[in-house]
Amino acid sequence: MTARAAVILAAGQGTRMKSATPKVLHKVGGRTHLDRAIDTVQAAGCERVVIVVGDHSPSVRETAEKRLGSAAIAVQYPPLGTAHAVLAAEKALADFDGDVLITYADAPLLRTEDLEPLFALRADGADLALMGFEPVDPLLYGRIITAPTGEVLRIVEARDANDAERAVRTCNAGMMVADRARLFGWLGRVGNANAKQEYYLTDVVGLAVGDGGTVRAHMAPESAVMGCDTPLQLSQAEAVFQQRQRQRFLAEGVVMLAPETVHFSWDTQIAAGVTVEQFVVFAPGVTVETGAQIRAFSHLEGATVRAGAQVGPYARLRPGADIGPEAHIGNFVEVKNVKVGQGAKANHLSYLGDGQVGAKANIGAGTIFCNYDGYFKAQTVVGEGAFVGSNSALVAPVTVGAGAMTGSGSVITRDVPADALAVARGPMAVKEGWAKAFRQRRAAEKAAKKGS
Amino acid sequence: MTARAAVILAAGQGTRMKSATPKVLHKVGGRTHLDRAIDTVQAAGCERVVIVVGDHSPSVRETAEKRLGSAAIAVQYPPLGTAHAVLAAEKALADFDGDVLITYADAPLLRTEDLEPLFALRADGADLALMGFEPVDPLLYGRIITAPTGEVLRIVEARDANDAERAVRTCNAGMMVADRARLFGWLGRVGNANAKQEYYLTDVVGLAVGDGGTVRAHMAPESAVMGCDTPLQLSQAEAVFQQRQRQRFLAEGVVMLAPETVHFSWDTQIAAGVTVEQFVVFAPGVTVETGAQIRAFSHLEGATVRAGAQVGPYARLRPGADIGPEAHIGNFVEVKNVKVGQGAKANHLSYLGDGQVGAKANIGAGTIFCNYDGYFKAQTVVGEGAFVGSNSALVAPVTVGAGAMTGSGSVITRDVPADALAVARGPMAVKEGWAKAFRQRRAAEKAAKKGS
Amino acid sequence: MTARAAVILAAGQGTRMKSATPKVLHKVGGRTHLDRAIDTVQAAGCERVVIVVGDHSPSVRETAEKRLGSAAIAVQYPPLGTAHAVLAAEKALADFDGDVLITYADAPLLRTEDLEPLFALRADGADLALMGFEPVDPLLYGRIITAPTGEVLRIVEARDANDAERAVRTCNAGMMVADRARLFGWLGRVGNANAKQEYYLTDVVGLAVGDGGTVRAHMAPESAVMGCDTPLQLSQAEAVFQQRQRQRFLAEGVVMLAPETVHFSWDTQIAAGVTVEQFVVFAPGVTVETGAQIRAFSHLEGATVRAGAQVGPYARLRPGADIGPEAHIGNFVEVKNVKVGQGAKANHLSYLGDGQVGAKANIGAGTIFCNYDGYFKAQTVVGEGAFVGSNSALVAPVTVGAGAMTGSGSVITRDVPADALAVARGPMAVKEGWAKAFRQRRAAEKAAKKGS
Repeated sequence: MTARAAVILAAGQGTRMKSATPKVLHKVGGRTHLDRAIDTVQAAGCERVVIVVGDHSPSVRETAEKRLGSAAIAVQYPPLGTAHAVLAAEKALADFDGDVLITYADAPLLRTEDLEPLFALRADGADLALMGFEPVDPLLYGRIITAPTGEVLRIVEARDANDAERAVRTCNAGMMVADRARLFGWLGRVGNANAKQEYYLTDVVGLAVGDGGTVRAHMAPESAVMGCDTPLQLSQAEAVFQQRQRQRFLAEGVVMLAPETVHFSWDTQIAAGVTVEQFVVFAPGVTVETGAQIRAFSHLEGATVRAGAQVGPYARLRPGADIGPEAHIGNFVEVKNVKVGQGAKANHLSYLGDGQVGAKANIGAGTIFCNYDGYFKAQTVVGEGAFVGSNSALVAPVTVGAGAMTGSGSVITRDVPADALAVARGPMAVKEGWAKAFRQRRAAEKAAKKGS
Repeated sequence: MTARAAVILAAGQGTRMKSATPKVLHKVGGRTHLDRAIDTVQAAGCERVVIVVGDHSPSVRETAEKRLGSAAIAVQYPPLGTAHAVLAAEKALADFDGDVLITYADAPLLRTEDLEPLFALRADGADLALMGFEPVDPLLYGRIITAPTGEVLRIVEARDANDAERAVRTCNAGMMVADRARLFGWLGRVGNANAKQEYYLTDVVGLAVGDGGTVRAHMAPESAVMGCDTPLQLSQAEAVFQQRQRQRFLAEGVVMLAPETVHFSWDTQIAAGVTVEQFVVFAPGVTVETGAQIRAFSHLEGATVRAGAQVGPYARLRPGADIGPEAHIGNFVEVKNVKVGQGAKANHLSYLGDGQVGAKANIGAGTIFCNYDGYFKAQTVVGEGAFVGSNSALVAPVTVGAGAMTGSGSVITRDVPADALAVARGPMAVKEGWAKAFRQRRAAEKAAKKGS
Repeated sequence: MTARAAVILAAGQGTRMKSATPKVLHKVGGRTHLDRAIDTVQAAGCERVVIVVGDHSPSVRETAEKRLGSAAIAVQYPPLGTAHAVLAAEKALADFDGDVLITYADAPLLRTEDLEPLFALRADGADLALMGFEPVDPLLYGRIITAPTGEVLRIVEARDANDAERAVRTCNAGMMVADRARLFGWLGRVGNANAKQEYYLTDVVGLAVGDGGTVRAHMAPESAVMGCDTPLQLSQAEAVFQQRQRQRFLAEGVVMLAPETVHFSWDTQIAAGVTVEQFVVFAPGVTVETGAQIRAFSHLEGATVRAGAQVGPYARLRPGADIGPEAHIGNFVEVKNVKVGQGAKANHLSYLGDGQVGAKANIGAGTIFCNYDGYFKAQTVVGEGAFVGSNSALVAPVTVGAGAMTGSGSVITRDVPADALAVARGPMAVKEGWAKAFRQRRAAEKAAKKGS
């Protein structure tokens, strides 16, 4: 197979997002557009990836560099058009022999299966393979003009199109594939004799045809190639993404009463036989095993829910929460970086942060793992079968031994041996009649206040 | 009136649900399809009900038996087709004289008013009354072929249909009504000389016509007869159900700002003059009286909210919660098996489980009823007008008397007399400068750690 | 410019709402229809506003009076038709010289820009300017019959229309503008010789034309003039309002992953560069500054979230919550009437009510500000850089000084000096083997209970 590389254009300013976050670092399904673009071309077999960044967004460069190394970064400066942007990648690919895909960091719905046909056209003899699409509203897009044989003759920008050309509905999506050497050859010959004095990538089509090359186009669905320039478009892309995920999980055997109220991330993993109730958010990094139930109003991120466990309603699982088989995490309970053992329960108003809960342990309502002293985080360990009384504070580092119990309302500051009881609370005093006298005093004060 | 009986077919395997739960025990609006089917035929006046189960789902058999007794269960084994399934019910109905309805346990949107026309056709002289429908996509359904007079001539399976028959849009939904003796007579004559060697229920149509009988069909809306074979279909049935409930409650005078975000159960009861905010789930068993407000993000199950009470936002009412008139249950508060008196308040971060709260009592923020010792549940009683201080733990069994008060942060372990004050907490000690010294030490440790 | 006044008709009974709340006091986007109507005509430059109320809804009268004073109230009694209702306002406007707008208190989507064209028609020479619309279903509406020149000839009620008139799709929305003196002149001549013996406002059209006056109509979108007579219509109006707000905030640069799950109020202010996650409710009075993040399942009312702050998931901000720059309010945390300083954090299961939290202070999980003794609310002040341990109760009035710390599980009942540590909890006692013995005893009791 011909070797594959990709040039991902990520140099756009993205000012229409009106956001301090660069456009390509916005997310669909919890993953940045840039990461998505890299993941997609890598999954398509591109062994080399070059990201073209501008000089205006150091965070884009840093993100790309962190992932791919500095050799994969090409800087376009100043910005002189899309052909000029791709040319910035020429040096990084100078030693590469094979097909180069040009694609975009702001196309967050593009999938590997949308790209494969471009490489297939190349393998089938096309010198240049283009991605086309039929937009619902083609107004501003360049039209792909083809011969009756299907070969592409040229791309006409909307503003330059005559009536017949404007009637063509096949538009240019911008992605293309060609042999590395020929591609950069054409790019080197693109001129800027136009109104904006920019170097346009689309001009390579005319150069390829002029060289006697064969140019062919593959049509993709509009959703696959849509860009993301504004918050509205971002929300539309997210909606398409969620719709895809919902259909996928339903097809795979996840029971959802109201799938339209369940939000997934790109990497969510849910097994067949899981039930998900209404109003649930899966942030990135979640795995749910079969037979588990995710109840309403739950929020999961970086968490694992094992077979037959029950979570929610109103459960918040944060990174490192590992909820064991048949365990229960109930309402208004937050779990972070805690492994919860098989059949353990924490059903009400608790914060479990940094530690372990043994199998069949019971964490009473209102329990807090006091895991932070302002400087360090420390571990709380609750042993197998232990019973932590309600409204307890476990001050880490601390261990409640297997089978141990703690009295309700206790502040546990040192280890409790296995099978022991620990109680830490003040003595109870009762003052007869005090409340009645208090009410009389307060009522008088309130009346006096109103009178004054 | 002719006596009525029903045979409910519940023997399907339901493998397309990809679930450990048998298909007919999945739920729409919080009620299993099987229960729904039984409720519907009983409401239609069927005095005898027979459930035909397979031998592969003991839980279906148990559920049906628990509800109707073992005499109402017929087992089909091995599965040899739909006619064979109905024949399994013959013995259970041997002594019954009247009309028999054949229907299905996986049609979760079928209503009594959809069935009544079949009985009416019978009363009007039809020997066999069939349920028909016009599916949006008739591809796989058997077509009902009628004479110009409207009489049914035969049912043609999709795979056996010629072009003219395939153009017919009237399809067979499967429900039918006939006299018991004639029905089982026809069933006994159904053969299995077909590709799958199965006994098809639809063959009774031909036998009835062959006997000179009159067969007529009633057309139902597709939604009424839709099956539920996959998670996708289940979610679609749930959506239709919710849409029906939302329209019903709006028409009855329930004010909902965003009805599309409110989810009901089959037995939810809400009076006119109730307001329901966004993102509310009514699980089964809820009654809300007039003037009550159910605020956003609330989840109710098995609970009663009395006139003028306010619940939520973020309130979770569990079975046995009975919220009195004008009472307030606020955010992050869970109530289970507690009767809350008129005008009482529990507004913040509390767990009230197993007990009673008197009229006008005030439950402070962060209060926990410690109702469980790992073996038994015990009762907490808060008297009329009592004031439970914030962050209290009431260790059941315990009573806080009428008009009594408890100090904030107290663990109340024995009864508090009426009008008394109870305080149970440790003495407060202050160490001057300690925090500053601690910060210096910790900062040094942190620096050392980084340096190492 | 001609002076402008408005008569707002608010006398309808609204029985179809089936609610104890009068129709015009129901809300869209968190504002009553009545307030909305007043705001709209005032924004349109009406210097005088008269509200016509019935005698059946004292709360409508009180609400209007509280806002505009008693001189602005006109009572229609008994109700004898719409013309009669407007005539009730004659006295209140007797000294007014200029144009009078007649509009309705139950049109909750009407905007100032929908009214301006009526005044423009007047300025352009029309003696009477009418609001028209083309309803999707014109069935019951009066038809506006115009001459080929566009001048209005008459309004024909649906029941009186002939076939040609019924085919007209231009319907009467009811709003109109005319010179005060002429308007009340026509109104005084409206008769009640009709089936219901009512005085109809639409009759002024015929009278104006009869006087040789010019009547013209402006067409508004149906959504702008829709009434709100039933809970269903109210929910539809709310849906249109939310759709408008979502589009507006997306256009202004607010990033929303799932805008269809975000609900706004009429006065919500959100800056560009804010991110709002799924399932968020903005009740009235909220301002969010740039760079802030509102995470999933949050509910905000009367709150300010300053630049770069993070709120939620599951945060509830109530009136007076002022969350400082870069501050964090986390899950299951309620904040009411508390100013939270820059960079301060309260991340888990806390209630902060009435007080202040200094910059960079840390409020531990499960902290409760005990702000209420049943009679008075008192202030809790946490100083800059203070560290409040988990599961603490701060009993107001109380101050935790700058840089001070409190031990986990403490009940703080008096001021803590700056940089000091305060601990208030009972001593911890451990009983070896107690839990094991307890389990054995309880298990035996449970077995005995089952056996009995």
